[in-house]
Amino acid sequence: MTYQQYPLLKPYLITRSLQPENQETPIQFIEDNIVKTHLLYRRNHFPYPTLSDSNFWFTIIGAVRTPISLSLQDILRLPSKTIKVVLECSGNKRSLFEPKIFGEQWEKGAISQGYWKGVSLHNVLELSGITKGAKEVVIEGNDYGYRQDLNKEYRYARSLPLSKALHPDTIIAYEYNNKPIPFKHGFPFRLVVPQWYGMASVKWIKRITVMETGFNGPYQSIDYVYYPIGDDTGAFPVTTINVNSTIQKPLDMQVLNTGICEIKGIAWTGKGYIKNVEISTDEGSSWSNAVIENQNKAGYEWTSWSYRWSAFNKGEYTIMARATDSFNRTQPTSAFWNRKGYGYNAIDKIKVKIE
Amino acid sequence: MTYQQYPLLKPYLITRSLQPENQETPIQFIEDNIVKTHLLYRRNHFPYPTLSDSNFWFTIIGAVRTPISLSLQDILRLPSKTIKVVLECSGNKRSLFEPKIFGEQWEKGAISQGYWKGVSLHNVLELSGITKGAKEVVIEGNDYGYRQDLNKEYRYARSLPLSKALHPDTIIAYEYNNKPIPFKHGFPFRLVVPQWYGMASVKWIKRITVMETGFNGPYQSIDYVYYPIGDDTGAFPVTTINVNSTIQKPLDMQVLNTGICEIKGIAWTGKGYIKNVEISTDEGSSWSNAVIENQNKAGYEWTSWSYRWSAFNKGEYTIMARATDSFNRTQPTSAFWNRKGYGYNAIDKIKVKIE
Repeated sequence: MTYQQYPLLKPYLITRSLQPENQETPIQFIEDNIVKTHLLYRRNHFPYPTLSDSNFWFTIIGAVRTPISLSLQDILRLPSKTIKVVLECSGNKRSLFEPKIFGEQWEKGAISQGYWKGVSLHNVLELSGITKGAKEVVIEGNDYGYRQDLNKEYRYARSLPLSKALHPDTIIAYEYNNKPIPFKHGFPFRLVVPQWYGMASVKWIKRITVMETGFNGPYQSIDYVYYPIGDDTGAFPVTTINVNSTIQKPLDMQVLNTGICEIKGIAWTGKGYIKNVEISTDEGSSWSNAVIENQNKAGYEWTSWSYRWSAFNKGEYTIMARATDSFNRTQPTSAFWNRKGYGYNAIDKIKVKIE
Repeated sequence: MTYQQYPLLKPYLITRSLQPENQETPIQFIEDNIVKTHLLYRRNHFPYPTLSDSNFWFTIIGAVRTPISLSLQDILRLPSKTIKVVLECSGNKRSLFEPKIFGEQWEKGAISQGYWKGVSLHNVLELSGITKGAKEVVIEGNDYGYRQDLNKEYRYARSLPLSKALHPDTIIAYEYNNKPIPFKHGFPFRLVVPQWYGMASVKWIKRITVMETGFNGPYQSIDYVYYPIGDDTGAFPVTTINVNSTIQKPLDMQVLNTGICEIKGIAWTGKGYIKNVEISTDEGSSWSNAVIENQNKAGYEWTSWSYRWSAFNKGEYTIMARATDSFNRTQPTSAFWNRKGYGYNAIDKIKVKIE
């Protein structure tokens, strides 16, 4: 009698830190184009907030005609939309920068995608009515903690310029993949800002403030800023996701047999769509186009691609993937180094040995 | 009303490959000295075997007076012993070798420890009676698969010299941490060989063969052999665990505040016990003794250690840990490079930034 034929083989989140909890998606092992909730990367600045009645409400204040409070029930009554979105932490691939950068050593998995359902922030703001001088919209979460550098407690808060805040696809989401957003991802509601790095998608929304001036909280003006050199010269904010790609198969440093080798992966961008993914197996001397599996010119999802490589000669090889988007942004040979390590998007590279 | 105060923060196994399933323990986040079953590293050469009635029996053949078959019930009737053992994959830390080595890129987590309960292989072999010319004992598992290099299917099998096979603490285990061994770790019975790297601790035992000659299966004579240079000159088998240590806290590349910083970790050896762990925070110029938390001169467990570092000056620091065992084996400055990447045990190193 046979009891067990195929034990389940499954990957788990990879822990970068537990206090706060930062865990990345095992992206090499994600085979479909929807990341399940338990594999959705977790990125926190603080301990998880306490869940209480007050979490089911948020207020809209500031440069509005009528300050209001909205409950989860209110939000659920508004017209909804569902969008398939890539969320990527701006620190994704930080561990690949040279020289190395201190902080969470994200490898390639601080990225996920899935279906987010919610209401347009635009529609929600209309309930309050934005006044003429409005310039930015600040979203505060229920998560907070002490910042040693400023010797003070802060709530996580980020602003969006009005144009981005009013984009119809910037949503207050309450479902992920057809289920209520899990607590660790912002239950009961969070912002989802397509095309921007994840820091903009504030979780556990507590308050929305429409401002007539620029917001300069520490997560706006200290963190999530590109510092191209040691000091603050030339600093500019982290916003749109860079064009990027990740090779999922084969695995880095894998030993393979001679024969046809399937190279596959994903590519994504915060501007337009992925037009092209090229593969090199000879250190960048020559490039061939990968097959684009699901080109979607309108959406916010990643593009899957694959390439059949005739690996008939034994030896060691570097496989590279280079994506280009419809704005002709192409992954660079080396990433734009910046002091806090955001936006890494150099040509993706792995090594394999053919035996 | 408060619904949820402290969401559970927990680490998971880190996946290196899924076919076969190879996953490492999130060792930096293991706080007690027993690794729970779901965090016990998984190292496989092949797909998991099929579980059927025949798995509950194994045979003893070869240079024995009476070939016998033993069932799980038979094994459970023999006198048992429980030992707390470090199991470490010989590929643990392979990713740290320079030059880099192809194959599973284990970081520091291909190591675990816990309580294994079972019967001495010695007692089991006595039931069969070993004949005079016996030299080695070969243990075969129920796991098998195709080896491309030899163009043939093989079963996983390893031999032990008679002295190691007959050591009273070399056991056929059937429980881990007071529960039946989980299927992925060898249910219903597996070998546990203290002080040797994990390749000796064959899972899913199918057959034991006492041999009068040396066994030369591929996992004995091709893999799990140190090859100090490109060709096979000077090759010798992987056996005893090297003296080693791993810093658990702080995390590599962590940013810390000025003040007292607790450095903590584990150290282990396959010979004797850990006598001493030294810490350097100045690139190895000076060393101080860590506090040994649980020195155990008789057992097979790792030693926890800690060190209070006065980190009052801002800057970037390299923290190093160097363990020495009671045979005066000390971790080397650089690891003994070998072609297949076994036994990495250089002084453990991380970097931190004090702000």
